[in-house]
Amino acid sequence: MAESETTRLEAFSDGVFAIAITLLILEIKVPAGPETQEHGLWRALLDRWPSYVGYVISFATIGIMWVNHHALFKYIRRVDRALLLANLLLLMTISFLPYPTAVLAEHLPDADSRTPAAVFYGGTLVVFAISFNVLWWAARGRRRLIGADAHPEGVRTITFRYGMGPLSYGMATAVALVNVWASLAIHLGLALMYALSERREDGEEE
Amino acid sequence: MAESETTRLEAFSDGVFAIAITLLILEIKVPAGPETQEHGLWRALLDRWPSYVGYVISFATIGIMWVNHHALFKYIRRVDRALLLANLLLLMTISFLPYPTAVLAEHLPDADSRTPAAVFYGGTLVVFAISFNVLWWAARGRRRLIGADAHPEGVRTITFRYGMGPLSYGMATAVALVNVWASLAIHLGLALMYALSERREDGEEE
Amino acid sequence: MAESETTRLEAFSDGVFAIAITLLILEIKVPAGPETQEHGLWRALLDRWPSYVGYVISFATIGIMWVNHHALFKYIRRVDRALLLANLLLLMTISFLPYPTAVLAEHLPDADSRTPAAVFYGGTLVVFAISFNVLWWAARGRRRLIGADAHPEGVRTITFRYGMGPLSYGMATAVALVNVWASLAIHLGLALMYALSERREDGEEE
Amino acid sequence: MAESETTRLEAFSDGVFAIAITLLILEIKVPAGPETQEHGLWRALLDRWPSYVGYVISFATIGIMWVNHHALFKYIRRVDRALLLANLLLLMTISFLPYPTAVLAEHLPDADSRTPAAVFYGGTLVVFAISFNVLWWAARGRRRLIGADAHPEGVRTITFRYGMGPLSYGMATAVALVNVWASLAIHLGLALMYALSERREDGEEE
Repeated sequence: MAESETTRLEAFSDGVFAIAITLLILEIKVPAGPETQEHGLWRALLDRWPSYVGYVISFATIGIMWVNHHALFKYIRRVDRALLLANLLLLMTISFLPYPTAVLAEHLPDADSRTPAAVFYGGTLVVFAISFNVLWWAARGRRRLIGADAHPEGVRTITFRYGMGPLSYGMATAVALVNVWASLAIHLGLALMYALSERREDGEEE
Repeated sequence: MAESETTRLEAFSDGVFAIAITLLILEIKVPAGPETQEHGLWRALLDRWPSYVGYVISFATIGIMWVNHHALFKYIRRVDRALLLANLLLLMTISFLPYPTAVLAEHLPDADSRTPAAVFYGGTLVVFAISFNVLWWAARGRRRLIGADAHPEGVRTITFRYGMGPLSYGMATAVALVNVWASLAIHLGLALMYALSERREDGEEE
Repeated sequence: MAESETTRLEAFSDGVFAIAITLLILEIKVPAGPETQEHGLWRALLDRWPSYVGYVISFATIGIMWVNHHALFKYIRRVDRALLLANLLLLMTISFLPYPTAVLAEHLPDADSRTPAAVFYGGTLVVFAISFNVLWWAARGRRRLIGADAHPEGVRTITFRYGMGPLSYGMATAVALVNVWASLAIHLGLALMYALSERREDGEEE
Repeated sequence: MAESETTRLEAFSDGVFAIAITLLILEIKVPAGPETQEHGLWRALLDRWPSYVGYVISFATIGIMWVNHHALFKYIRRVDRALLLANLLLLMTISFLPYPTAVLAEHLPDADSRTPAAVFYGGTLVVFAISFNVLWWAARGRRRLIGADAHPEGVRTITFRYGMGPLSYGMATAVALVNVWASLAIHLGLALMYALSERREDGEEE
């Protein structure tokens, strides 16, 4: 398959990323009339804070992952069936994320079910990080999928950075067993860290 | 119409595939607070297993079908109105799939309605396989839609493989009358088989 | 703006068409467990027939309209702000269509509210047909938006065909006041007629 | 990153705009059978007017913002990570808009909660206008992201026009504290004003 194949694969992936990121809002429930009788609409809107927290973390995570998917495909020149399947696995995890996000938002205020909700959410991100590595291995293992002009250091940087993902997200998930809020803060921090630190990887072009 | 017409048709189809595959998650219901009172959130999440089964099978099926749609359009160079209509029929079936998936997930735990749900699901996949053949016939029957450089063996391989589709999915659906689980296992197996065996078809480029 | 502007406008429009057409399925409700107790799941699925009717008619209509939008932009070479706004108006009607479709499906079985539901549905299609004409006038009125190489007969054919739209859909809507089923049959017939008769317009390329 | 990077960023953004604009319709609830018993379906459909008002204003706003995003990227030639993040912030606000739209539609008929709903809605548009400025600053502050051939007056016009945004939307939001209807009329007026006045900016090409 030619380079144009990468284009269509990227376009399809972009579509799934764009839809998953936009569907997140559907999980936030609109306060109905009766709910606002006693304390007013502002209070009802503020009571939705766990939904906003989930929205922001998941939006940031999917958004950054889109940027990374993007960065990764700068190195990939060809597509074979293994890569297609690895990419489908990644997209399946992305598409799944609105569900644990909604579970988290629903159960964050409840002390009893808060921990399983955060572990379920974090576990999804671990699978996410793993499938990112599977995709990268599928491309790198068959060296000819990567352009001959690929900067070896760039390839090593990606290998290292993505290799750290499952570990980082795994630890963030484990933290949820002790303190859910700390776990969520780490998730948001990881998204920002991946967002900012990636810059070096593009360094040669600046 | 020029080759660029194919591009726009493929982009539109990709959009429908991408949206249908992402909408699947909306059908999985978030466990509400009360449901988790007695047995906890983990149990409530585990009780959703039929939804996860449906999600994975439908995601794999749509994903593989996207790959195949993709492979098919490598041979198609021109678009006429019959092809547009055949493609619309295919997209209508794809867009429909989240519904039988949700029906299956809702009724899989219930011994009484499990069988009709699986037959309804399988029947949709049969229509799916048929409309794939209609699309291919619409392209092949008017030979000029296919590039003159099309590999005759590749064309024959697709004709044979897609021709098998309605039969295979039909048998998988019939199995549901005897055993629903065996039927679902065959559906998943068919998706994987289509995913892996297609490789030979791209062989000349490797 | 250059021709590439048309590309982005078409891509955005394709996105809205693709999403609206795929969202139609979300309006079909999954039969819940209790509903199937008495008569079984098959009966509950069959009772959804008005939803399937609405799904097929709206899918066909949006699909054919996408094809026509497509045909129309073969003539349009440039984009200005009036065209952008006319296109937004058209997209607003397309995006709205899942709502009257759901209203129709909900009220088709009820003899009392069947008629207003069909009139509401048909009225949306009238607005749809009008906004198609507004788009075409916006392009044709400023002749330079259309390529100098545009076939005059093709332009006339589109002008005539689209000019007939509001009238045809208006009559189909009026028929709903007498007989809802006849009205729906005409809607489906109009979609097919627009699908098949358009071929002459592309004739010079065959 | 090369110009093709802008292409993929624009395509992803277009996807999010297209999905957010199309999801608006999902927030309008279909009148159920019982609701139409007493006064009929027409009355029930008319009672949905706040939803239609919200639909039109939000559709117009997102649509015009898409046009502006579009106009803005005519000047942007390169993409760096800061721009990607600023764009994500903008998309996060766009994706969020269906929620305040639904809140507005739900509470517009209720004199008590109408004002907070309109302030919440307007506040989202203020954040929207701010994030548009952040995006523009991210592009302009690093001058090399903008093509060397960028028309200085065009750049100044955008800077001024977008700089006015937060102020205009802020005032429209403040008006909601006095009169909600006036505030909504201003929002619609702002969308139209941005739609029409932008023409001068493209003037050099006409």
